[in-house]
Amino acid sequence: MDSVAPLPSSPRLIVDLDAVRSNYRLMAERSGKAKTGAAIKADAYGLGLERIAPVLAREGCTSFFCAHLSEAVAARSALDYDAEIFVLSGVSYGEAPLLRQKHLTPVLNTHEQILLWREAGGDDPAALHIDTGINRLGLDWHNFAPAMAEGLNLSLVMSHFACASDPAHALNTKQLERFTTIRNAFPNVRASLANSAGILHGAETHFDLTRPGIALYGGAPLDTGGPSLTPVARIEAPVLQVRHLRKNQNIGYGASFTAPRDMTIATAAIGYADGVPVAASNCWFGRIEGQKTPLLGRVSMDLCVFDVGHLPSPPQPGDMLSLLGQDLEVLASLSDTLSYELLTRLGPRFVREYKGRSA
Amino acid sequence: MDSVAPLPSSPRLIVDLDAVRSNYRLMAERSGKAKTGAAIKADAYGLGLERIAPVLAREGCTSFFCAHLSEAVAARSALDYDAEIFVLSGVSYGEAPLLRQKHLTPVLNTHEQILLWREAGGDDPAALHIDTGINRLGLDWHNFAPAMAEGLNLSLVMSHFACASDPAHALNTKQLERFTTIRNAFPNVRASLANSAGILHGAETHFDLTRPGIALYGGAPLDTGGPSLTPVARIEAPVLQVRHLRKNQNIGYGASFTAPRDMTIATAAIGYADGVPVAASNCWFGRIEGQKTPLLGRVSMDLCVFDVGHLPSPPQPGDMLSLLGQDLEVLASLSDTLSYELLTRLGPRFVREYKGRSA
Repeated sequence: MDSVAPLPSSPRLIVDLDAVRSNYRLMAERSGKAKTGAAIKADAYGLGLERIAPVLAREGCTSFFCAHLSEAVAARSALDYDAEIFVLSGVSYGEAPLLRQKHLTPVLNTHEQILLWREAGGDDPAALHIDTGINRLGLDWHNFAPAMAEGLNLSLVMSHFACASDPAHALNTKQLERFTTIRNAFPNVRASLANSAGILHGAETHFDLTRPGIALYGGAPLDTGGPSLTPVARIEAPVLQVRHLRKNQNIGYGASFTAPRDMTIATAAIGYADGVPVAASNCWFGRIEGQKTPLLGRVSMDLCVFDVGHLPSPPQPGDMLSLLGQDLEVLASLSDTLSYELLTRLGPRFVREYKGRSA
Repeated sequence: MDSVAPLPSSPRLIVDLDAVRSNYRLMAERSGKAKTGAAIKADAYGLGLERIAPVLAREGCTSFFCAHLSEAVAARSALDYDAEIFVLSGVSYGEAPLLRQKHLTPVLNTHEQILLWREAGGDDPAALHIDTGINRLGLDWHNFAPAMAEGLNLSLVMSHFACASDPAHALNTKQLERFTTIRNAFPNVRASLANSAGILHGAETHFDLTRPGIALYGGAPLDTGGPSLTPVARIEAPVLQVRHLRKNQNIGYGASFTAPRDMTIATAAIGYADGVPVAASNCWFGRIEGQKTPLLGRVSMDLCVFDVGHLPSPPQPGDMLSLLGQDLEVLASLSDTLSYELLTRLGPRFVREYKGRSA
């Protein structure tokens, strides 16, 4: 672990680089003959692009996907010049010079973006994004004609599944058919369709390049879970106070919890400003030395209260309470959200510690 | 507005410093004879402590409240040496030297923290936090004896309401009574109880110092709203694509929206990584030139889709779609959360622009 001397009262976010490495290897294995890229948008799903991208590169990843140009510029600083970095939002007016200067590949999503890239000189590689049914961003498959891409130096034709987390969803087959038809019009261009979930659907979705994201960061790609991934992110929150609560006393804002009996509670320095959702109120749990400690009352901006009365020995101020880790998916489900959202909303107040081998 | 040249594809967060100023003045007016402090924890509720704290100081605020020591150190850099900066989490083992060096005031919450501060020399000012019924952090009023504070140089005795957003809640009166009894044991020490909501309860909760937070940032302190505050934070998200959707087509992950008719939709560069909750799916709205545009489908990490078919003229790629602003409380309510959470989870990807007069 890197040497850092965090203040004892600050929450920490511990990111396991070896776990990222192991998850990438699993996705690469499942990607079969296809090359395996990596989605590192949103600061590598909130966990630190600067530290994670080089680890993936070291594992053999050569294709990286960012959302915005600003992210791609940061990725270029973290990666060698020959790493291929795609900008999923494409190109906006005035952005072409910076894209070219930094050797970044825009993913062209619209007719306007194709025109912008062509007008900017357009000899540099670009990707073409066909929307085959998510109806979010990309050239509509229904109106698409290969002639639209004339004059572009295409390095990739891609699309994105809407319902890959449910392999039985009828839209998957439709999207695969539509994409296959379109990619066949570009026989000399690489094709990419599968995100983490799509990779698990099997070889016919893999094409030339896969683009895992959530699986790299330890989140389950399928609604039903999927292969066993290694947890990547764990929060450690310092306990500030341990105290007794009398029967019928309330906890927190809105007095949303009432003690059914005398209890022992611990208050930890972690709150919704750090990424524990308000929706986790009265339903999440943390862990102290592996034992579950239920979260009581409403999550505050900087504090959460936990039930610790059942532990063999009560914690002391300064002890650490863990969140996320192996419980990521269960906690996401308890607060009615996605592991994706929990990771990307981890706040700026953490001391971030990276364990495992750096690149 | 500060001169910045954001990339056209990046979302922007626009923070109105004049609005903060105006909201502070309103809270100061409502605080009557009491001095008016400011909660600037969690990076001034996600909006930028470095820019906001000096504006508040210029308005006459001399008492600032941070959650952690790390935040208080940042606040000290932004404020003059004579500004009083409280650290609500108190003091942990090893932190006393930095607190003293930076002239920061720990809020002592536990017997252990009192001992730590005394052992560290303890002549410097400290605040005492009595928990009068929120049962979250602080010395339990039930067991409190003034002798516990012996040998401390107290600059403030404080407590915190659990249910101030509902002025009729019975716990408010109990907390006020308990706090009054305890503060009377410290006749020469300033007392503080009221947050934004508490300020609106009336003069008897004001004591010597009030501590508004959410009201400064434009959020409603009371469940029923409260006085008219000026919106402080507004998101501007660039439109990336405008397209037609055919009847019965779906939008987004999980295909959670199905078009009831042919529609015109706009995809904007904003997602849950930026702070639009997944819970906003199919229920929030944005605005284009003041007109409401309903959010359709599931919020993605980097993208949201909006219905724009009813606008007098459809937007173009590069046009800006607004979120939050005057709609902050309505949007919080639609996604079943608090304006506090929406503000503190605004992500790191924004270009932050400050308008209005700086300090």
